[in-house]
Amino acid sequence: MPAETSTQQLIARRNRLLGPAYRLFYEQPVHVVRGEGIWLYDAAGKRYLDAYNNVACVGHCHPRVIEAIARQAAVLNTHTRYLHETILDYAERLLATFPAEIGQVMFTCTGSEANDLALRVARTCTSGTGVIVTRTAYHGVTGALAELSPSLGLPEPTAPHVRLVPAPQSAGDETGEIFANHVRTAFADMARNGIRPAALLVDTIFSSDGVFADPPGFLRPAVEAAHAAGALFIADEVQPGFGRCGQGLWGFARHGIVPDMVTMGKPMGNGHPIAAMAARPDLLREFGARSRYFNTFGGNPVSAAAGMAVLDVIEREGLVENAGRTGALLRQRLDALRARHELVAEVRGAGLFIGVELRHGGAPAGQQAARIVNALRETGVLISAAGPGGNVLKIRPPLVFGAEHVDLLVDALDQALLENSPG
Amino acid sequence: MPAETSTQQLIARRNRLLGPAYRLFYEQPVHVVRGEGIWLYDAAGKRYLDAYNNVACVGHCHPRVIEAIARQAAVLNTHTRYLHETILDYAERLLATFPAEIGQVMFTCTGSEANDLALRVARTCTSGTGVIVTRTAYHGVTGALAELSPSLGLPEPTAPHVRLVPAPQSAGDETGEIFANHVRTAFADMARNGIRPAALLVDTIFSSDGVFADPPGFLRPAVEAAHAAGALFIADEVQPGFGRCGQGLWGFARHGIVPDMVTMGKPMGNGHPIAAMAARPDLLREFGARSRYFNTFGGNPVSAAAGMAVLDVIEREGLVENAGRTGALLRQRLDALRARHELVAEVRGAGLFIGVELRHGGAPAGQQAARIVNALRETGVLISAAGPGGNVLKIRPPLVFGAEHVDLLVDALDQALLENSPG
Repeated sequence: MPAETSTQQLIARRNRLLGPAYRLFYEQPVHVVRGEGIWLYDAAGKRYLDAYNNVACVGHCHPRVIEAIARQAAVLNTHTRYLHETILDYAERLLATFPAEIGQVMFTCTGSEANDLALRVARTCTSGTGVIVTRTAYHGVTGALAELSPSLGLPEPTAPHVRLVPAPQSAGDETGEIFANHVRTAFADMARNGIRPAALLVDTIFSSDGVFADPPGFLRPAVEAAHAAGALFIADEVQPGFGRCGQGLWGFARHGIVPDMVTMGKPMGNGHPIAAMAARPDLLREFGARSRYFNTFGGNPVSAAAGMAVLDVIEREGLVENAGRTGALLRQRLDALRARHELVAEVRGAGLFIGVELRHGGAPAGQQAARIVNALRETGVLISAAGPGGNVLKIRPPLVFGAEHVDLLVDALDQALLENSPG
Repeated sequence: MPAETSTQQLIARRNRLLGPAYRLFYEQPVHVVRGEGIWLYDAAGKRYLDAYNNVACVGHCHPRVIEAIARQAAVLNTHTRYLHETILDYAERLLATFPAEIGQVMFTCTGSEANDLALRVARTCTSGTGVIVTRTAYHGVTGALAELSPSLGLPEPTAPHVRLVPAPQSAGDETGEIFANHVRTAFADMARNGIRPAALLVDTIFSSDGVFADPPGFLRPAVEAAHAAGALFIADEVQPGFGRCGQGLWGFARHGIVPDMVTMGKPMGNGHPIAAMAARPDLLREFGARSRYFNTFGGNPVSAAAGMAVLDVIEREGLVENAGRTGALLRQRLDALRARHELVAEVRGAGLFIGVELRHGGAPAGQQAARIVNALRETGVLISAAGPGGNVLKIRPPLVFGAEHVDLLVDALDQALLENSPG
């Protein structure tokens, strides 16, 4: 049967079985059947350069991670109500990547669970409920996080204890102070309304807001403002974490700050469901005195083995350095497209987390971004778009992306920009 | 180094790395290093009869499940924003086990995420917030579920939109009507307080309440009461599901009811983190029209392969029938202990989900239950205790439990009861 018929049948079957809350990427969704390194393959054998998936951070189907999972699964898979060394070895190794203040870690299965737990801890330790997030933030899908994730576009009005602030917009000397002022204003508004603050929660690369990374350090005044208001600062590293920013493992480190809690997930097990929340021990002491926590699958020996294997590969293959080196090359090549294409307003990001903002006549060019994302998919390159106007091309490939992949991506984007320019 | 020193060092290391919110089983926690079928082994080589862990439902380290995970992990592990057939094949197979009304399924990674999602759907579709749960219920660890899980013993007062009802206590003709009356009273109280009802949420085996299964059908009047009040009925099958009750795959089926939503998890992937929420399509139509849902790891091809392998093994090895057969034998043997031990007040349950209630002088014998659980651990048999008084021995072994394991368990319990009788 023709590939298109088959795809339409799969979509119909999917809608029937999984319902309408799920979304597919692209006007012509991709039916993937195989992955290897930086490549995904569809059912017709066509190959796609994966310039989007951060989950497979060490490359699709990395043999070392698969082997670690299979080996541990054959020996033991239980939970944290028994003693087991792998989870402690992994916790120790993970914690060694954080500032000394972040001394303990709790394991979950998803970034949503990690953020939800951080929120529970923040609310317990501050006796407050108020949370500040950015205007197009995404932090997860639990009930408590959906109301902190305006990028989901839910029709529900924002909950009374939530305040939205504009994401940092420009990479200038004033960026940090402007952002901190918004944060201060939001805390003052909480105070006027009798809402006790609990947390400032931000994705340290502002992914769904449109990718804002510079200048390094701009988060510091906002974190100080949060502390001055009695709130905790939660660094959501689910997207920027594990070396993607090309400089150490964590996005917050670029800003010279020490969070009170750090959440992480997506790339942590290269696709195996593992996530975590690391925190200051004094916070967990208070939380632990009032609550106990058990996550049946969280921190099981197989997940710990997967997490350990990912850290091994990142280290052995020098992937943080690669993210820095290849990321710099990619930004330089993308930046050169600005001279050739009026649509390209700005190229920004850190390491292999890059946003390419498209604007037309001063306005966000969301429709052109969507056309370009779909055109690239047709030529065999996978990216997506983000930001409130959907006008920021989001480029976030596996960390094994090399110079040859940069060429393929930039040439394809150059061509797509040519064919989809507004005038 | 002696095993005890090593255990104490592990505990200290664990407290230092993971913090104080985690709990360990047993006065002398078990340091497990290997699992196989019905057996767990500690670092000293001692073997334990596992009569507690429902997650490893087809037995620890079942080769078929491991092979399915390793095979799919080597080919592809992505997410639901691309088309993939394994997740659809699995969804189809899973949905075929439900009444026709439950026509769609959404995938998460944990039972907590599944219950949290069911709650979001219920609140969206009813425009209500009120939820009824039982007095010692446990439904998960997200912020929204912690307030519906009084068994966590949180010091926070119950949230204003939550009503607690006593779990069914006696297996009599009136059990269903008594439970339904409590439910009606709780809905009436919501109405008086201007709280619009959203859901009645129960674990269909009432595990943390102390295991209540009989008479079959007792849930029906309460479900009718929920519907009459405009609320939805959510069957939490995270513990009783996947054949444990020895009669079909689902605990609700014993009660001759059709839930509006069903949540499942723990045994679904035999330890691999997979969970789900199945629902009436009209509910998901309404939810999908107002919200989109994406769970990065939920429903990935590897998780789907693990889930499919578990269903294969349950079917090929006849584990539902075994749960019914071995469960009946186990209950019969446990019931015979009543004549020998005054402490044993009642033996109840369904299939391989059994509660043994201990009472002394008419009162719940929680201390004796704890002593017996710890004594069994010393002799190499793993169980736990549940219920508001901690006086119900909770027996919930992998479904591959056989007659020879029944002998080992009952003989050990007989001895532990002898040595720990109140005098």
